[in-house]
This record gives sequence, structure tokens and C-alpha cells, in this order.
Amino acid sequence: MTTTTALTNHQVRLAKRPTGLPTRDVWSFTTEPVREPADGGVLVRNLAISLDPAMRGWMNEGKSYIEPVGIGDVMRAGGIARVVASKNPQFKEGDLVSAATGAQEYALIEAAQARKAGLFKIDQRLGTPNQWLNVLGMPGMTAYFGLLDVGQPKPGDTVVVSGAAGAVGQTVGQLAKVKGCRVVGIAGGPAKCEWVVNELGFDACIDYKAGNVRQGLKDHCPKGVDVYFDNVGGEILDHVLAKLARGARIVICGAISQYNNMEAVQGPKNYMSLLVNRARMEGMVVFDYVDRFPQAVGELAGYLKDGRMKSREDVVSGLDNFPEALLKLFKGENFGKLVLKIADA
Amino acid sequence: MTTTTALTNHQVRLAKRPTGLPTRDVWSFTTEPVREPADGGVLVRNLAISLDPAMRGWMNEGKSYIEPVGIGDVMRAGGIARVVASKNPQFKEGDLVSAATGAQEYALIEAAQARKAGLFKIDQRLGTPNQWLNVLGMPGMTAYFGLLDVGQPKPGDTVVVSGAAGAVGQTVGQLAKVKGCRVVGIAGGPAKCEWVVNELGFDACIDYKAGNVRQGLKDHCPKGVDVYFDNVGGEILDHVLAKLARGARIVICGAISQYNNMEAVQGPKNYMSLLVNRARMEGMVVFDYVDRFPQAVGELAGYLKDGRMKSREDVVSGLDNFPEALLKLFKGENFGKLVLKIADA
Repeated sequence: MTTTTALTNHQVRLAKRPTGLPTRDVWSFTTEPVREPADGGVLVRNLAISLDPAMRGWMNEGKSYIEPVGIGDVMRAGGIARVVASKNPQFKEGDLVSAATGAQEYALIEAAQARKAGLFKIDQRLGTPNQWLNVLGMPGMTAYFGLLDVGQPKPGDTVVVSGAAGAVGQTVGQLAKVKGCRVVGIAGGPAKCEWVVNELGFDACIDYKAGNVRQGLKDHCPKGVDVYFDNVGGEILDHVLAKLARGARIVICGAISQYNNMEAVQGPKNYMSLLVNRARMEGMVVFDYVDRFPQAVGELAGYLKDGRMKSREDVVSGLDNFPEALLKLFKGENFGKLVLKIADA
Repeated sequence: MTTTTALTNHQVRLAKRPTGLPTRDVWSFTTEPVREPADGGVLVRNLAISLDPAMRGWMNEGKSYIEPVGIGDVMRAGGIARVVASKNPQFKEGDLVSAATGAQEYALIEAAQARKAGLFKIDQRLGTPNQWLNVLGMPGMTAYFGLLDVGQPKPGDTVVVSGAAGAVGQTVGQLAKVKGCRVVGIAGGPAKCEWVVNELGFDACIDYKAGNVRQGLKDHCPKGVDVYFDNVGGEILDHVLAKLARGARIVICGAISQYNNMEAVQGPKNYMSLLVNRARMEGMVVFDYVDRFPQAVGELAGYLKDGRMKSREDVVSGLDNFPEALLKLFKGENFGKLVLKIADA
């Protein structure tokens, strides 16, 4: 076993709850000595962590699908890490693992926390570490179960996905293509739209920054929208509601346009389209599907291998850059799954 | 056959599309001679017509689940009527029928229109003519299929219904009680609330006019809301969204609080509760269930007969009073199913 006690851990902690955008002042940077794991525990070194829109919700006080991050706590984050010390027979030094490692260089995962942290060894034959934060990680799982279980697309359906060049959106759209659907993305800017169509094979992509989502939906969804996978909320949700096909399914995965609102969330004023079109809008939380993750990982890894699916990660380096990197999400500046690299493999 | 050609028909026609409340000036009152039915047709005399919140939607231009009433057309309405002349072998003079007879004294239903008008003979052993506009008519069918097919209540579930003393709400709540649910109504004023609890057997009723729907839901739904049958939209929908139980189902049946808005509809700003609670919100239109109406009528008539269900109608008399009678709905002044009596039986 490596001697680890001489190591210092750098951490990003939530210093206060943000109002609006989570600017640098809501974070504190701390250091502390690295401790040895007790029996059954592992000590891991983070290679990269996932930056997700959902993080913004975890920073708020109050009841949600998961407890909020406490003031003074290391920020919750999923990571890919290397085992540097193990007192758990299932893991050995050098193993690559996935776990909720947090926004820090080292994470000590004691036996009692292993399950809650979702600790498992990753198989690099199925995908790269970055892909394990993307298609094979939470965003991919969210896409898979949200689209297939909640959205229930049928071959020939028109599937619309917002945040199309983001982590969840890229997999939703490609998976819908694999399942025989017509797929229309919504993304910000011509570069993302071109990538989504030319590289990922979406049938069309609407550039919401160019202004006319309504006309774009009219042009590209002549038979209406059968499945809408919503990552953004706000006006775009209203535009899609106005174009639903009979019996449509809206998957509520997120509402990134609303997370930093200083005022109340903007509710979908066209929600009565659900009545007119006998449609439904349903929320989903990926943690509910943990037992079926292996099945989804196997299927998605197969598509990555046979070329039916691609992935893109947007990598920012350095734990110190955590605050600004996270803001890229809320400014729509990330192109692909946003990953914060913390150490070399 | 009675001589009918000497009869004069009085009618209420849509003169112009309303903005806001449908005041008297949007209607015109016309008279015309009654015509004889052609082969296969029937001429009926309206005894009573149903006044429904949905009528407000039919008065708007634009795509909906049914075509709008045209300017100058007789206002669409469901009625219970007596056959006064028949050239259809299935109906004879004196029969009581249900059909979309419109806001007029006499309706001529030619053979080609009989199906679209939903013409059928009613069985007075199952219910009174007024009940055929209520529990055994469209409101009852809406309650039955909306609650059971879309809401999918399980015994022990907490079911909340708004507009609880209205046509649909009274049947939703009583049916949910029959199915073993805990039922909480929301209605306007102490008289309606008392009736709903003491006469209909709801477990509780929240008087929204008294102000504190939020506290009422907290008091009466300690385990959260499993099924919400929404007839009203607006703030009440938001309060219920904030109290959903895990896996809740919201049935979107109507949004009477929003129908006369001069500005945009108020979207449910708490809709992200659908995600947090893995809940769904789904619209329904009663016409989709026409093939199963006989089954539902049979079941509901059974509950009326054995006393497990009651019904209440709020009867206004006189076709001339149509405009003011309709407004009672939007002011929340009706107590029970609103019926406009046009002629004695």
C-alpha cells in the first residue's frame, strides 16, 4: 500500500446558498490531510468529476429528490477515480472506479458509505473514463430511462430534445434514432446544431439562439411532437407544448433555464395543450433506475462500439476552476458533457 | 305525427367571440320556423340543456379538441329532449332522448347528424332527465374515465378534487370514496364544503374562498396527494403540486379559473414537483371514451340506486336567461351541476 498520510486534499465546499447564479463567492477552497481508510474502506484519487445542471438544485435548501448539500460540506459530484489505498477486498490499488467522490482531489469512501456513493469498478473496455461520466454514467442513464421508460417512443415517432448537444441530450437523440424515430434537437448556436445533425445523425436541429423555435418546430415537426425530452423548461417548453401530437409524452428531466431564477419559476402557460392533445408530462429521477443500470450500460456501450452512437465531452482542467466551469452550463457554453479534469490518469 | 310546422324555434346564437367573460352582448337571440324532419331524422323539443365550463373554450377561435362554434351558429349544448316528430324507426313521438341539441327550443337532427350529435334514448329507470345531464351524462362520464383511467386511484390513496361541488367534482369525489380512497374536496364557500362532506361523504373539504388552500392541504393530506383531479387550474393547481406524493397522478380536466383570462394563462410554476415526485400530469377529453359510456352509466346508475352516490343539480329556467346562467359557472355561483330548463317534461 502506498503511504498516503503525507498527501494533502484540496476541496471545494459550499460556503453559502446562492441566489441566482452560483458565483465564486458561494464556494470556499479548503485543504486537509488525507486519511487512511478503515477496514472495508477505500481511498481514491479523483481523475475527473462530472459537472451537472442538477448541482444547482442540490445547492438550494428544502425538500427535493435528494437532500441538499450542507453549508460547509464538500460539493457533491460524481467522479471517476483511481484507488490509491484499499482495505476493501473488492478493490485494489490502481483500480478505476466510479463513485460520488465530490469536488475534491481525494475521497475516502468508508465501507458504510460505499453503497450510497454508488462505488463500482469501471470496465475500460466499455468506454473511456470520460465516457463513464457521460454516456455510461448518470447522463446516459438519465437519457436511457427517461426516453425509453417515460417517453416510450415508437418507431416513426417525432422526438424533440432540448439541450441537444449537452450530456443528456446527445444520448437521448442518438438513442431515439437507434429506436427508429425522427429526431429534432434544440441547441444554442450553429456549431452545436451542425454537430448534432452531421455527426450525431439527428434529422434536424433548431438553434434557439437564432430566435425562432416556434417556426423551427413547425418546419421540422409537421405531424407534431410525439415525445419531448425537456432539459430546459421556460419558453422552449411552451413552444413545444403548442406543437404536441395527440397522445404525446413530455419527459421532465430538468429545467436549466429556470434554476437560477431570482423570481418564481416560469410555469408552462400552454399546459392546457395536455388536455387538448390527451398528452402527459411526467418527471423522472435517474436514481430510481439504479438496479437496471447494468442493462443500460451494456446496451449503450454496444452502440458506442458499433459506431451507432458517439459521445463528446467538454473538458475543463483544474479543481480551482470549478466555479467558472460550472457556470458554463448555465450560460449554455458547454459543448458536450461538461467534465472537470482533476488529475492525469 | 304532430303538426310541427306552425311552431317557432327560439335560439341562442354566438354573435361574436368574447374577450374575457362571455357577457350578454356576445349572444344573439333568433327565431325561425320549425322544420319537419326528412327521412331518418327526428325533431325534438329541448327540456333542459347542460351548461358547462367547456362551453367557454368552444367560443374561442383556433384549434382545440373540438371545432369552435361558428359566429352566427346556435350555441352547442348537450340536452335532454322529447321527440315531437320522428321519421327514424328507432325513435317515436314522446321518447326522451339525449343529444347535442344546442341552446334552442327545438332541434332537428337529421339522419346524417345523429351519430355526431350523440343521439340516444334515455332510460328513466336509471336516472332522472337532470341526472342524465349530470352523473349519467358528460360530467359523470368525464369524472368516471378521468378518475379511473387517467388518475388510476388505488384503495387508500388520497384523492383531491377541485370544483368539488360542481358537476364533475361531485362524481369524482363520490366515486373515489366508492373505490376506497381518502377524498379531499376543494370548493368555494362553507355551504358547498358542508354539503360535500356531510351529504356526499368526502373526508374533508377546503374552502378556497376562505384563503388558505396551502394550509388545508397540509392539514388534510398528511401523506401528500396521490391523485389530483383538476377542474380549475391557476393557484390551486400550484398549491396541490407543492403537496404531491411520490408517483402522483394529476388529471387535467379543465382550468375554469383561466378560461376568461384577458392575459395569458397562468402556467403551473410548481411543475418541477413532477420531477421531484416522479409524478405525471395528463389531459383527458371525455369524447375519447364514447364506446365505454354504457359500462360507466351502468355502474354509476347502480351507485345512485343503492344510495352510495347522490347528485345535485342547480336549475335555472328559461332560454332567455342563458347568458346570465352561463356566467354563474365562471363566478363559482352554481351549486351542483348547472342545468338550464327550457320546457316542462
